[in-house]
Amino acid sequence: MAEFPILYTTKAINEDGIHGEAYIEDGMRVPVASPTKPDPGSNPEQLIGLALSTCLNATLEAIEKEHDVPHQSKVETTVKMSRDRFGYQFFLDAKVTVPEVDLDTAAHWLAIAETRCPVAKLLGDNVNVKIHV
Amino acid sequence: MAEFPILYTTKAINEDGIHGEAYIEDGMRVPVASPTKPDPGSNPEQLIGLALSTCLNATLEAIEKEHDVPHQSKVETTVKMSRDRFGYQFFLDAKVTVPEVDLDTAAHWLAIAETRCPVAKLLGDNVNVKIHV
Repeated sequence: MAEFPILYTTKAINEDGIHGEAYIEDGMRVPVASPTKPDPGSNPEQLIGLALSTCLNATLEAIEKEHDVPHQSKVETTVKMSRDRFGYQFFLDAKVTVPEVDLDTAAHWLAIAETRCPVAKLLGDNVNVKIHV
Repeated sequence: MAEFPILYTTKAINEDGIHGEAYIEDGMRVPVASPTKPDPGSNPEQLIGLALSTCLNATLEAIEKEHDVPHQSKVETTVKMSRDRFGYQFFLDAKVTVPEVDLDTAAHWLAIAETRCPVAKLLGDNVNVKIHV
């Protein structure tokens, strides 16, 4: 990968475990709590969902721009959690809407976005992850 | 997967693209901005790093508890971004420290944690992701 220089680096740290804060080195702090307890706070489910929704929608926004249409796309990622044989598992379902074009065009743009968006590339081959219009 | 009931569901939404806000339905709002611009705000790099650090450290915390040792583990995930052939790619490097045990024990606990932590399971097989003590 040496032909592609690094454009950005960040460091995300958790010291507290599931109750407390996670934080970016020299950056934002996010209160975290167990998703199965009533305590307020975010959790890995929300954070990975926000990462996928934001990455994919930013990529769709770039594709809209290439087609000279105003940005209207939206990505909603539902994250579900259950146990599995050894611990826990997440199920991600990212629903994409591009209201200014027909469904075939939206599906085509999404296919392009999935080749560009780094979070979709990290997650997309997993059987627990669905990305669709 | 029908044998494992869903224990938690959340929905993470991005409408704005890379500049604006991403949000959890009925929950937190996160300002987002391009990582290559000086504008303040989080980004997919930070959010996926926080998801992995928090999930993995929460799992290590549970393993510490099973061994009756006080929680001291820490996970620092460095996320780097570069272009690739079709768009962008992320490189994730999660560095785990468990200061109260020796390195072999820490490596063993990490191996167990990787079989339980849902974010590690979603990301761990990717060549761009490294998880290590």
